[in-house]
Order: sequence, then structure tokens, then C-alpha cells
Amino acid sequence: MISKLIKKIKEKDAPIVVGLDPMLSYVPEHIQKQAFSEHGETLEGAAAAIFEFNKGIVDATYDLIPAVKPQIAMYEQFGVPGIEAFKKTVDYCKEKGLVVIGDIKRGDIGSTSGAYAVGHIGTVTVGSKTYVPFDEDFVTVNPYLGTDGVKPFIDVCNANDRGIFVLVKTSNPSSGEFQDREIDGRPLYELVAEKVNEWGAMSMDGDYSNVGCVIGATYPEMGKKLRKLMPNIYILVPGYGAQGGKAEDLVDYFNEDGLGAIVNSSRGIIAAYKNTKYAAYSAEAYADASRQAVIDMIEDINGARK
Amino acid sequence: MISKLIKKIKEKDAPIVVGLDPMLSYVPEHIQKQAFSEHGETLEGAAAAIFEFNKGIVDATYDLIPAVKPQIAMYEQFGVPGIEAFKKTVDYCKEKGLVVIGDIKRGDIGSTSGAYAVGHIGTVTVGSKTYVPFDEDFVTVNPYLGTDGVKPFIDVCNANDRGIFVLVKTSNPSSGEFQDREIDGRPLYELVAEKVNEWGAMSMDGDYSNVGCVIGATYPEMGKKLRKLMPNIYILVPGYGAQGGKAEDLVDYFNEDGLGAIVNSSRGIIAAYKNTKYAAYSAEAYADASRQAVIDMIEDINGARK
Repeated sequence: MISKLIKKIKEKDAPIVVGLDPMLSYVPEHIQKQAFSEHGETLEGAAAAIFEFNKGIVDATYDLIPAVKPQIAMYEQFGVPGIEAFKKTVDYCKEKGLVVIGDIKRGDIGSTSGAYAVGHIGTVTVGSKTYVPFDEDFVTVNPYLGTDGVKPFIDVCNANDRGIFVLVKTSNPSSGEFQDREIDGRPLYELVAEKVNEWGAMSMDGDYSNVGCVIGATYPEMGKKLRKLMPNIYILVPGYGAQGGKAEDLVDYFNEDGLGAIVNSSRGIIAAYKNTKYAAYSAEAYADASRQAVIDMIEDINGARK
Repeated sequence: MISKLIKKIKEKDAPIVVGLDPMLSYVPEHIQKQAFSEHGETLEGAAAAIFEFNKGIVDATYDLIPAVKPQIAMYEQFGVPGIEAFKKTVDYCKEKGLVVIGDIKRGDIGSTSGAYAVGHIGTVTVGSKTYVPFDEDFVTVNPYLGTDGVKPFIDVCNANDRGIFVLVKTSNPSSGEFQDREIDGRPLYELVAEKVNEWGAMSMDGDYSNVGCVIGATYPEMGKKLRKLMPNIYILVPGYGAQGGKAEDLVDYFNEDGLGAIVNSSRGIIAAYKNTKYAAYSAEAYADASRQAVIDMIEDINGARK
């Protein structure tokens, strides 16, 4: 699956991913109104509103981008109807030819991780039938439980040609509380990176592994070092834009082949129309603002690299 | 919320929780048949089967137990219909007066953890209306992202009188890969425990905090030490029974007040009828086997403590 993602990144010349993390407050009035008039001010109404919102953004940007990253929490907060909107979003994006990275950050003991894996990137059997429940291409995975919590995901990756991104160094301010603590003179995130290398070797797909990792854009020095520690591991980079990460900081997240990293932006793209920079766009034209923000982001990232 | 759980534990004299982690293979033939005849061999059929299965177990045991712990992965593997069965299970257990611990092991950057928190233990606003999406009483939380990934859960606990259990030392074989690594001469899980104490102070409810922790039954020496490090923190203990944890190992997970720990059993209770020990029970009488397994577990745990 990583080779498919790389192919799309090359085709679009865009090492970026759009984070579909819709807060209801990002959804323009006219879309909320329409959804509430059909479903009432209900969880179903909220779910319909965020799906319509997503659809607009995907329609306006899919020709420019290789992938999307829906953050399931933003859907899960609306209960069962929210999860339904997540699934519809995954399906819609795949129809449009996009690679879908489910940002689910799951991780549990072996058999339980196995259940998450089949649910999100695998298949599940019911009687004599087989189903693909959520059907993402990649998911994010939390490493705190160690190898037996990660291995079931890798097995499912190998069975279904899918991939994962394991959290190594997250973008948030307090990520250092545990991740940066030194063990035998090296931070915990480096030990996790070492394990990611081991896990990565279990699922190679060309020069890169289907096992990638997550390193926040907000810690460029660490990103630079980790890049070298994990030469065959693709890095999913959150934290660009709204969280503070800058394009020039991200140059060292890439390998010399120009590959090895894919940078996410969520709010900066999907809520672009609320940003003063895109004030020329009305709420009705929110998707056009998102398209312009994608163009600007690609230029920013590629510009810094050249 | 912890005081409510404690009250129920005392009422039933049963410091245990039944893990509702239904694999389809645990569900007796006759329940599967009935569900498939109504819904076909579909995700909906699987969801209906596991809900009926749960209902039987809850009906047969709710008078004996204070709480249940549905593991959401087992539902999520069946996609949207599975999540619907999770929600129905939560609702049914609450109708029966049980405290519901959603074993979701979520954890993300601040705003995203906030979305998980409102979805599972809080309320979400849609227009002028407010909803309680999943409505668990407690959820489990992964600490890898640090304080800003946990704090939003605590805020929601305080706003809605709910609780969380933070992973400290998990029950699985490879939990030590990262959790046991030494930092300044102490294992990582002790540093997490120290943070749990800090977080716990933010949400006290009587002698104990609404912020509890998870420590596997499979590491009794560590449990004993951690018990003393976190005097006001309730310990949710997975790993008893099928995973290998024994009652005599768990004595030190309790405080001198007889409180401080609640022991989970999943497979050992819900699939009891498949165990040779309960061979007298047919598949049709699976719920009676579960009831007997609950009685035996309470006797085992309380016996070891006396």
C-alpha cells in the first residue's frame, strides 16, 4: 500500500494530506441549515452536515492531493450517526481515487488490536460471508502496549495490502512528558523508532515499508534525527500550519529521493474560509477557499524543498 | 462517579467487572441462527447476534455485579452496525443499573481527546440541542501523548460526573517493551503512575479519584508497588483468568479499606459455557454458565482476600 501512496504523491507532486477533521463550527451556516431542515438539530443532522461539508472539500481538492486523513474522533463525538458519516466519508474519498488514512490511534492487547485491524483495514467474516467494515487504506496506531499490540495490525496489512503509521513523536505540547524521557541515554521516542524499524521490516513494499510512523512538524530537530534512524519508514507529519509547524522545518523529514514524508494539514485547509488570508471567499465558497489553501500548501512545502 | 462505583461494589460485595468482549465465535449457534435468519449473514446480523448474546449474560448476572466493561474493538470490527450494538449494550446495561466502563483506550492531542471525551462520557451540542452520544460512565485512556491528551477527559469527567482509567501497566506479554524501560532508575510505568496521581488530584470524589488506572493482573509485583504509589487511585485490573492472573496475586491491588481495585474477567465469564469446568451447561444455557462463573469469580477473589 505504501507504493500506491507514493505513486499518487509523485503523480500530484504533492507530499501532503488533507485532514478531514470537521468540527461542527467549521461547517458553514448554509450547510448546517440544510442538514437540520432535513434531520432536525440531531446527531443525524450533525452527521449529515459534516458529511456534506467534507464532500464539498473533497470535490474541490481531490485532483490536487494524493490522500485524506479523517480523524475519527471528530465523527465519534456524534455517536453512531457520526461513525456512519465517517464511513461515508471514507467511501466517498475512495470513489474519488484518494488514499484514506484513518486517524484512529488505536492500540490494545493482541486479540483486541486484531479486532481493530480487521475492522479498519481488513475483512471480517460473518457466517459464510466476508465484509470490509470501514475500509481505510492506512490507520494510525499507538505503540504504548508494545509489539503484541502492533503485530496484529501488521498481519492484517500483509493480508490485505494496507498500511499503518505508528505514533513515535506526537505534535502536541506535552508529547515530551513521556516520549522525550531518556532511557539508557536516548529518548523513549527513539526506542519506539527502533521498534518501528523492526516492525517495518515485516511489511516492506518496494523501498519503503507499509509500516510508517507519525512525527509532529512541531519538533523539527527530532524529526531530522528520526528521519536518519528510520530510512525505510514513511513519516506522516501532523502539526503543520495551525499547530505551528513551518515548511522550512520539514525539509529534513524527507529522504534524498524526495520521498519519505507526507505532511498533514487539517484546520488550515478545511476551515480556510475562516482565515483572514482567505477573506475573499464567502462561507458559500468555503470549498474554493480550501482548494486555494491546498495549492498554497503544496507551493509552500515544495518551495521549501527546492 | 468513582463513589457511585464504590457504592455498587460494596452493595454486591463484588469487586469485579464483567468484560463484554463478544467474539462471534463465543455466540452460541442458536443465537447466531436467529440473528442471521432476521438480518442475513451481514454486519447487521453479527451485530444483532452479539447484542442478544450480551443481553442474555447481563440478564443472568446484573444482580451479582457492579459493572460491565464492553471492549469497543469487538464491536468496531463489525463496522457501523457493530458500533450500534455497542451503544445498545451500553444503554441496556445502564437500564439494568450497572456502571459501564467503555474500554476504548483512546488518547490524542488536546482538541481531539476532547472530541472523544464528549462523545463517550460527555455531551455534544447540535444547534440548540444537547445529546449524550455513547453515555459510558468511565472510559479507558492511553497516556502516551501526555497531559494535554488526558486533561480534556478530566474536564469532561468534572463537568458530567464521570471517570477514566488511564493505562499504566497493561496485562499483555510485551507491555514491558516500553512501559518497563528505566528512566532515572525507575520504570516508565512509575512515571505514568506519578502523573496519574497529579491528574487524579484534579477530580477527587470522596477518598478516591474519578481518575483511575489500569494495571494488569499478570504483573502482581508491579501491582503491589503501584498500589502504594497511588493511594487514592482506583485500579482496574484486566488479565485475571483466561490471561493467567490469579486471585491470590491480586490481594495487594487492594487498599487496607478493602477498596481500590476492580478485577475484570471477559472470556472467563462470557464464554464460560465453552470451558470444560462448566461442561454441564449446554450452549442454550450459556448465560447460566456465565452466572455460575461470576459466582465462582467473586468467591475466588473475596476468598483470597480473607
